[in-house]
Amino acid sequence: MDYRKLALERHKELRGKITVELKDTLDSQEKLSTYYTPGVAAVSSYVAEHPNEARDYTWLNNSVAVVSDGSAVLGLGDIGPYGALPVMEGKAMLFKHFAGIDAVPIILDVHSADEIVAAVVAIAPSFGGINLEDIAAPICFEVEDRIKSALNIPVMHDDQHGTAIVVLAGLINAMKVIGKQLKDCRIVVVGAGAAGTAIMKLVNLYADSEILAVDSKGIISGDRKDLNDEKKKLLEFTNKQKISGSLHDALGNADVFIGVSKAGLLTTEMILIMAKNPIVFAMANPDPEIMPDVAKAAGVAVMATGRSDFPNQVNNALAFPGIFRGALDNHVNKITEEHKIKAAEVIAGLVEAPTADEIIPSVLDTRLVTEIAKVIV
Amino acid sequence: MDYRKLALERHKELRGKITVELKDTLDSQEKLSTYYTPGVAAVSSYVAEHPNEARDYTWLNNSVAVVSDGSAVLGLGDIGPYGALPVMEGKAMLFKHFAGIDAVPIILDVHSADEIVAAVVAIAPSFGGINLEDIAAPICFEVEDRIKSALNIPVMHDDQHGTAIVVLAGLINAMKVIGKQLKDCRIVVVGAGAAGTAIMKLVNLYADSEILAVDSKGIISGDRKDLNDEKKKLLEFTNKQKISGSLHDALGNADVFIGVSKAGLLTTEMILIMAKNPIVFAMANPDPEIMPDVAKAAGVAVMATGRSDFPNQVNNALAFPGIFRGALDNHVNKITEEHKIKAAEVIAGLVEAPTADEIIPSVLDTRLVTEIAKVIV
Repeated sequence: MDYRKLALERHKELRGKITVELKDTLDSQEKLSTYYTPGVAAVSSYVAEHPNEARDYTWLNNSVAVVSDGSAVLGLGDIGPYGALPVMEGKAMLFKHFAGIDAVPIILDVHSADEIVAAVVAIAPSFGGINLEDIAAPICFEVEDRIKSALNIPVMHDDQHGTAIVVLAGLINAMKVIGKQLKDCRIVVVGAGAAGTAIMKLVNLYADSEILAVDSKGIISGDRKDLNDEKKKLLEFTNKQKISGSLHDALGNADVFIGVSKAGLLTTEMILIMAKNPIVFAMANPDPEIMPDVAKAAGVAVMATGRSDFPNQVNNALAFPGIFRGALDNHVNKITEEHKIKAAEVIAGLVEAPTADEIIPSVLDTRLVTEIAKVIV
Repeated sequence: MDYRKLALERHKELRGKITVELKDTLDSQEKLSTYYTPGVAAVSSYVAEHPNEARDYTWLNNSVAVVSDGSAVLGLGDIGPYGALPVMEGKAMLFKHFAGIDAVPIILDVHSADEIVAAVVAIAPSFGGINLEDIAAPICFEVEDRIKSALNIPVMHDDQHGTAIVVLAGLINAMKVIGKQLKDCRIVVVGAGAAGTAIMKLVNLYADSEILAVDSKGIISGDRKDLNDEKKKLLEFTNKQKISGSLHDALGNADVFIGVSKAGLLTTEMILIMAKNPIVFAMANPDPEIMPDVAKAAGVAVMATGRSDFPNQVNNALAFPGIFRGALDNHVNKITEEHKIKAAEVIAGLVEAPTADEIIPSVLDTRLVTEIAKVIV
């Protein structure tokens, strides 16, 4: 299927994928006077005096802003706000379809951390939660931290944590398939941007595994002089054996390869130096670090990608709808590491008997949102 | 009808008056791949390369942000962002109901002109237009000017211009009722905030009438030492006879009283010193400067208020839906004074035979949006 052509055609036909609808008609003077002036004045006065009840009288109980500055859109890079809008409208569709949440795309024409934080904090009272999306590393880390600190509503940068949650869920089930413990594994993560960093942090917290971070220059190690602050922080819990070198050097006897890097990076030869029954999550978009058939031929025991046309799709849509549904319904104002781990365990648990071709449930599994929402408390 | 009680009940029942809906279902993997990844990447790439076509592939052709900082909400004053939200959701309902426009309430937690401008400009690429609402004077003037200059999409502060357009429409028809020309009238405008200032500017531009501006301290005149910059600017075209004094002093032989001030300000005695067949627009909310029965008993020939339970309601909803409908459909990026005058003429023209009790069409008149949109070109 040529989704490229189909997508252009359908988007031009629809001219926008979402629309704002009314919860009641406005077909009488009485309704106009109830929902707008003069009646609404009573509601505004009441809410102004009882701001904690604003969610009971407005859409705050069910609304999320999907915010992006367009600096890291899909695999397309910094294509600016207008390029980001179709993706954010699509994300808003997913929010509604999977979780019944009213999501609004907010694309930003500013790019410094200070400006992004200021804009999001300024508009935050309009929404019950903030989903940050497609903001480039390393600025995304600072932006998310500062917005979370400033606001008292759920805030999550999905490229980081949505991905990390689903990867952890997949790893939990992959361990069942190969009969190992995650804490005993040596894990190589290639790509130290938003997703890679969040994956490493979450896996470390969950299992205290031996983790090696690899970027385009090689293993992230203390002797490198080119590391930014975020990469330096990775050394607090990765590379405890203080290894330097290339991806090839990192992979010797590794149990798990996790790629959020670029197509074709992982070769058969590299897989052959990994431990027996290696696990490969090759999530580069649109083409993975290695194709599943090649990986399996080289002995990979469990394989996941970011694509819907292969088994085991690592798809953020498994996680974020339930997380925001739970946070909104349960009045959770901070999404914590514990929430993320619990969500990963719920996602993993939905696969009753994991196999090499099924470590991750389908995004169409209708239990996902309800079950995840229950643990976001 | 106790709209106060009814409004509180209905708002609590609905928990938000608007919702986001999808223009197509997402019930297959094919649709997920068309509207989200991987298909959407083609749309994002195309739009990034052709930003002028973004409106053809996204909701930009039909979306408006209803932005308020909550500093002048209805007659309630500075009640803050949460208090503003029910009004902005209501406004979004009006946008959809009357003009089919997808409007999103954006309430701001910042209050300086610099911060409001920065926030609105930052999020502007998300919307096809910006409706500023309930922002206090005098900051609203600077805020609107700066946002209009910074952006290439329609921007309108409705408290100013929506009101001014409908007042001008009403005045055009009131003149027909009493058989005078607006250019020959002496007009006293009480209240020199957002609405009053915009009314004076638009009436001056349209008819070059003799206008006196009156605020809580009396006639705005050159000898006053307490005038802010916006009020000083009014002296460029009001009070050409350089009169000082009270509202009472202003009203001697005046043809028209326009009040956007406070309840009960206008007395029978004051009406008696006005010209014969005076016109009174008493638009204080919720209670007018003088009640219609009292005004008529004192000899007022044509009376308008802001209320739906009296004839001749000056209601912004007569103007803004058609103005934004036209601006969006006709790719109009600046709403000009000419647009406002044309919109007023269209509104006035919809009343075929104006009488004292019908100088303004009903907000439910279905011709309004279509006819106004035609002149916003």
